[in-house]
Amino acid sequence: MNEKEFLNEVKEISLLNQSLALLEWDSQTGMPEASSDFRGDVVGHLTKLSFEKSVGSKIKESVDYFTEHSEELSELGAQVFEKVKEEYEQNCSIDPKRMQEYKATLSTAHTSWLKARKANDFSIMKGSLEEIIAFLKEFIPLWKKNEKTDYDVLLNLYEPEMTVEKLDLLFEQVKNGIMAIRKEIQEKGQVPRTDFLTRKVSKEQQRKFVLGIATDLGYDFKKGRLDDTVHPFMLPINRKDARITTCWDEDNFKIATFGVIHEAGHGIYEQNIDPKYDYTPLAAGTSMGIHESQSLFNEIIIGGNREFWKKQFPFFKECTEGTFDDIEFETFYASLKETKASLIRIHADNLTYPLHIIIRYEIEKMIFNDGVSVEELPAIWNQKYEDYLGIRPEGDLDGVLQDVHWSGGSFGYFPSYALGYMYAAQLREAMAKDLDIEKVLSSEDYTPIRAWLTKNIHQYGASRKPARLIKDATGEDLNPEYLIQYLRKMYSDVYGIA
Amino acid sequence: MNEKEFLNEVKEISLLNQSLALLEWDSQTGMPEASSDFRGDVVGHLTKLSFEKSVGSKIKESVDYFTEHSEELSELGAQVFEKVKEEYEQNCSIDPKRMQEYKATLSTAHTSWLKARKANDFSIMKGSLEEIIAFLKEFIPLWKKNEKTDYDVLLNLYEPEMTVEKLDLLFEQVKNGIMAIRKEIQEKGQVPRTDFLTRKVSKEQQRKFVLGIATDLGYDFKKGRLDDTVHPFMLPINRKDARITTCWDEDNFKIATFGVIHEAGHGIYEQNIDPKYDYTPLAAGTSMGIHESQSLFNEIIIGGNREFWKKQFPFFKECTEGTFDDIEFETFYASLKETKASLIRIHADNLTYPLHIIIRYEIEKMIFNDGVSVEELPAIWNQKYEDYLGIRPEGDLDGVLQDVHWSGGSFGYFPSYALGYMYAAQLREAMAKDLDIEKVLSSEDYTPIRAWLTKNIHQYGASRKPARLIKDATGEDLNPEYLIQYLRKMYSDVYGIA
Repeated sequence: MNEKEFLNEVKEISLLNQSLALLEWDSQTGMPEASSDFRGDVVGHLTKLSFEKSVGSKIKESVDYFTEHSEELSELGAQVFEKVKEEYEQNCSIDPKRMQEYKATLSTAHTSWLKARKANDFSIMKGSLEEIIAFLKEFIPLWKKNEKTDYDVLLNLYEPEMTVEKLDLLFEQVKNGIMAIRKEIQEKGQVPRTDFLTRKVSKEQQRKFVLGIATDLGYDFKKGRLDDTVHPFMLPINRKDARITTCWDEDNFKIATFGVIHEAGHGIYEQNIDPKYDYTPLAAGTSMGIHESQSLFNEIIIGGNREFWKKQFPFFKECTEGTFDDIEFETFYASLKETKASLIRIHADNLTYPLHIIIRYEIEKMIFNDGVSVEELPAIWNQKYEDYLGIRPEGDLDGVLQDVHWSGGSFGYFPSYALGYMYAAQLREAMAKDLDIEKVLSSEDYTPIRAWLTKNIHQYGASRKPARLIKDATGEDLNPEYLIQYLRKMYSDVYGIA
Repeated sequence: MNEKEFLNEVKEISLLNQSLALLEWDSQTGMPEASSDFRGDVVGHLTKLSFEKSVGSKIKESVDYFTEHSEELSELGAQVFEKVKEEYEQNCSIDPKRMQEYKATLSTAHTSWLKARKANDFSIMKGSLEEIIAFLKEFIPLWKKNEKTDYDVLLNLYEPEMTVEKLDLLFEQVKNGIMAIRKEIQEKGQVPRTDFLTRKVSKEQQRKFVLGIATDLGYDFKKGRLDDTVHPFMLPINRKDARITTCWDEDNFKIATFGVIHEAGHGIYEQNIDPKYDYTPLAAGTSMGIHESQSLFNEIIIGGNREFWKKQFPFFKECTEGTFDDIEFETFYASLKETKASLIRIHADNLTYPLHIIIRYEIEKMIFNDGVSVEELPAIWNQKYEDYLGIRPEGDLDGVLQDVHWSGGSFGYFPSYALGYMYAAQLREAMAKDLDIEKVLSSEDYTPIRAWLTKNIHQYGASRKPARLIKDATGEDLNPEYLIQYLRKMYSDVYGIA
C-alpha cells in the first residue's frame, strides 16, 4: 500500500458519489415522475458500489497500514487519511443487514408521516417513530467514542465535537436573549408597514433580481445553476458544480429572494474549497453547522444589512418594473424585518427562528437522554411553543408533524441551524475587524467579503473541525453573545427600541 | 451459472448505463460549463466499470456456459443471451489498449474538425481523418463475420444484416426517383408562397404548440421531458425516461416544430418497448435505421399529411396569437412543402434529404472498398453535389466539413437516415391497409397510429433485427418504391405536377 494507491481508491469512491449527486439533483428537479422505480434501482446500485468500496479491502488495507505507518503519508495524504478512517470506522460500525432494515424503516416512516399529515393525526406515525428511535438507541453504543451522553453521539453525526454540555449553555443564553428582545418589541416596538410585500412580482422579475444578487454575492453561475423545486436546497456535485434551487411565490417575493441568498451561501462555500482536496471527502463542508453559517451569513448578515439593501433597492425597483415606485427605501427596509411568532419553523423570521430550533433540541435530548416516550411528544411540543413563543398549535400538522427530519431519522441535525446563526454572527464580528463591511456592501464589488470567508472558512473544506475553524477565524470559542447583540441591533433599529 | 445470475449481471450493467445516460443528458443540456473536467472523469470511470463488466468473468462464463447449454434458458433468457453474446464478442474483438488509442484519436480529430471549420480548410483535419480510417481498417478484419466487403462491416455496426449489395440497388432507385420528381418540379411546378414562414413566433408560443402536438402524437411527458440544446436529440435513460431536446429559432418556427415532431418519434419508440426487456440490452431500438423510421414516420408521414395539418392549424393559430390570421390553410400547408436544393444536409427538405445521404454513402464506400484517399474527398464531394443536386459548395465548410460524423469515426452511420425514410414510407403503406390514416389524423385521438407502430415495431425493442421487423410488419422486404410514390404524391399535390 502506498499513498498514491490509497488516494486513487478514494478518488474512485468520489467519482461514484459525484454520479449519485447528479442522480439526486435530477430526481428532485426534473426526472419524469413515472420513472422513479427505475431511478430507485439505479441509485440503490451505485450507493451499494460506493458503500462496498468505502468498507472494501483496499480501504481496510489502507486504514490498517497507514495507522501503523503514518510517517509515509504527505501532509495532504494524512489529512485525507484521517477523514477516510473516520468514515470507514463509522461505516463498519453497523451490521449492513441492520442498516438495510433501518433504511427500510425510514422509508415506511416517510409514508406514515405523509399519512399522518394528511389526517392531521400524530398517532398514525407513532409506531414508525418508535422503531426509528429504537434503531438509533441500538446504533448509539456502536457509534460511541468518548461522548458523555447518548444524544451527544447523534449531535456529533452532524457537528463533530459539539456536546450537550456546551449546547445547553449556548442555547440557554440564546433563548433568554431572544425572549428579552421579543418582550421589548412587544412592549414598545413600532410595527413596520408590510402590506406591500404581497404585491405581485412575476417569476421572471424575481428571477432577474435574484440572479443579479446571487452573482454579486459571489455565487459563480459558471460553476452552478438555479432550478425550481418544492423544497429548496444546494447540492454539490463537485466544487465546479454546486447547484442551487428555489421555489417561487408571485405573491411573496421574499421567499425566493431570501431563499436564493441563503442557498447561494451554501454554494459559495462549496465553490471555494481548495482544489487540492478534489476527489477526496475533504472537498465538502466540514459540518452542517458551518454550512449553515455560510448560508446564514448571506441571509441574515448580508441580507439583513441596511447598506446592502440601499445599494440593491434601485435594482429591485428596476426588476419589478414600477410595482414599488411609491415605496420609500426606509419603509421597504423595515418591512423585511417584520418579526412575528409563527407555528411553522420554515415560515419563521430571523429573530424567532432559533427558538424553533431550541424547542426541537430540548425534545430530542429528552427522547434520548431522559427516556421521554413518543406518545408524550405532541403535548410537550405544544407546551414549549406556548412557553417560548406564546402561541399554541391547534393540531399536530401545525405542531409536531411539521418537519420531515424525525421520520427521516435525522435526530441531532436541528441544532446545526441555530449553530449556523451563532457562527455567522461571530464571523461578522471578526470580519468587521479586517473590513468595513458597510462600505463594501455599498460598493459595486462584494469580493472582499467572499474572499474573507474563503480565507477563513471555505478553503479548508472538511479538513478542519468546526471549533478550530471558528477559533482560528475569530480568535475565540463560540460565543452566543454576538448573535444576541446582532439581533438586538437589527431589530431595535427597525422597531425603534433603545 | 444459471439464468437468474446471468440476468442479474446484465441488470447491473444496465444500471451503470442508465446513470451514464443521465450524465450524458446533463452534459448536453445543463451542466455548468466549468465542470467539464470533473464530468469527464466521472463518465470515464463509469464507462470503464460498465465495459469491464461487459467483458468480465461473469459474462464470459455465461457466454461459455449457455452457448453449450442453450436449452437451460427461458425464451426471454435466450433472446437476451443472443444480444449479450453479440455485444460480448464485439467488445472482446479489439485490444482495449488499441481501442483507447483510437478514442484518443477521435478526441483529437474533433478538435481538428472544429479548427478546420473555423479556417474553412479541410486540409487541417486531413491527418486526423487518415488516422481514424487506418484504425477502422485495422478493426474491420477483427469485426468481420461473413460480410462480403469491408464497408459492409461498418454498415452492420449501425444496421445489422444490411449489405452494400442491397443498398446499391435501393439507393440507385431512390436517387433516380427523387431526381425525376425534382426535374418535373423544376420544369412545371408552381412554387408555393413562403414569405410568412419567417414571421416571429416567440419561444413560449412555439413551446405551447409543440408540447400539444407531441402529446397528441403519443409522446408521454410523464415518461420524458423537453429541454433546450444546440443539437437536438432523444436520449433514452429507460422506457419511462426518454428525454427529448430541441433548439428554438423565433424567426423560423419550422425548426422546433418539425424537430420536436421528429424527436418525439424516437421517444415514443423507447417509451413503448415491452417491459419484459427492462434492464437488458433489448430495451433499446434495434438499429439506427429503424429508430429513424420512427422519428421520420412522425416527421414526414404525419408531419407531411394534409389532414394532420388541417386538424392542427386552428391550434397553431391559437398558439401564435393572431400572427397568421391572414393566411389560409392551403397556403400554410403548401409552404411547409417547399423544396429547394441546399448545400447543408441538416437544412435539407424531405425531398432532397436522401440525396445528401446517398452522396455520403457513395463516398464512404469509395474510402473503404475502393481505396480512395482522404485528399480526394473535397473534390469528389463537390462534384457529387453538382451532379445530384445541381449546386456546388464554394468552400469546405459548406461541403465536406459540414458533418461531425467522420471526425467521430461514425463511418457506416449515414445510410441509416435514408433507410429510415424508406422504412417509414413502407410502414405507412402497410398501416393504410389496417387503418384509415387520414380519418385518424382528422380526429381527436391519434392512438390507433401509435398503437399500430407499438404492435409492429416498438414493443420488440432490440429483440428482432430490422429486416424481420419490416417483413413481419409489411409483408415484404424493404422496397424503395413506397418512398418514391409517397414523395411524388406529397410534392405533386403542392407543386401541381401530375
